[in-house]
Amino acid sequence: MPKVVDHDQRRSDIIDATWSLIVRGGLEATTMRDIAAAAGFANGALKHYFSGKAEIVEGAYYKALRQVSERARQRTEAVTGVAALRAWCQATIPVDREDWEAARVLLSFWELGRSSEPEGKLYQTHLKAWREELIDLIAQARAAGEVTSALDDDQLADELVLLNIGATAMVVVAPHQASPELFERLLDSFFARL
Amino acid sequence: MPKVVDHDQRRSDIIDATWSLIVRGGLEATTMRDIAAAAGFANGALKHYFSGKAEIVEGAYYKALRQVSERARQRTEAVTGVAALRAWCQATIPVDREDWEAARVLLSFWELGRSSEPEGKLYQTHLKAWREELIDLIAQARAAGEVTSALDDDQLADELVLLNIGATAMVVVAPHQASPELFERLLDSFFARL
Repeated sequence: MPKVVDHDQRRSDIIDATWSLIVRGGLEATTMRDIAAAAGFANGALKHYFSGKAEIVEGAYYKALRQVSERARQRTEAVTGVAALRAWCQATIPVDREDWEAARVLLSFWELGRSSEPEGKLYQTHLKAWREELIDLIAQARAAGEVTSALDDDQLADELVLLNIGATAMVVVAPHQASPELFERLLDSFFARL
Repeated sequence: MPKVVDHDQRRSDIIDATWSLIVRGGLEATTMRDIAAAAGFANGALKHYFSGKAEIVEGAYYKALRQVSERARQRTEAVTGVAALRAWCQATIPVDREDWEAARVLLSFWELGRSSEPEGKLYQTHLKAWREELIDLIAQARAAGEVTSALDDDQLADELVLLNIGATAMVVVAPHQASPELFERLLDSFFARL
């Protein structure tokens, strides 16, 4: 089915072009016209691949999500307990250029999610699933006797979610004050209390 | 000088209209045309008051900033040491509808700051000043013997900055998972470690 492959490839090209445009100039500067030009399409041709800008930006968001999830999965598959929890946190906190770009795309997706309900709901659904995953990891570490904190698992997960969202926002809006070392120290402080 | 007063009042009206539009539909949906219509101006008349959309949105950001700073100042003037630090944190973390709107405006300003350099730099300057203020409060509390944490004041301030940025982002992008109680618990956990 060469036609299907081609279609997917073109969608992927459009998403890549959108990613670069968001990183360069933000959501508002990323117009359908710019996306078409950057991806090498005629004006109006994007509608054969996406219903509109929101769906394209959603594609860029999924790309960012896959990037982070894939790394988190790889880093946690050989470890258990607190080590798995820590690896998971380190994999999802922005540290390098690739992460910075993903965080930048996420910020635009947050902004989009405030004006477009489907995208807003999608993010909240993912965040809920992500929090559940953290609660599972904390519960496993507690069952292994590695977590003795009096705080319950829900609250510990909330702290990590907030830490991660804060780090993601900070790396984009205050790059000079955000550093991998800062996030690492904050994680140290969290894990010292477990 | 009635003309000057009038000019300031009109700038303020334009900012208020922009605030409502951002809260309702986000940065991108807030066009110059919409702002003019909502503030009761003819198309093109806004240019007598602002250089462009970025400057108007900057005005809305300053409004959000004043709202939070004024409350922080009021709540901290009668207290010192750890009580002042805690009052400051509680005053700057979003809890009610008014704060939610300010957080929403801030998220759009973050997004704007990534595509418009003056706004990006402005936010970073404010964030730096805010962090300095936190370091001062922590140092005062430490001098009073109320802070004995082995973590240095810079790191403690970084934790609070990240907690606050995370709370601001979360209340906008995941309102169902963000609650005043969650933020209060996280502050409890922070202050228990001081």
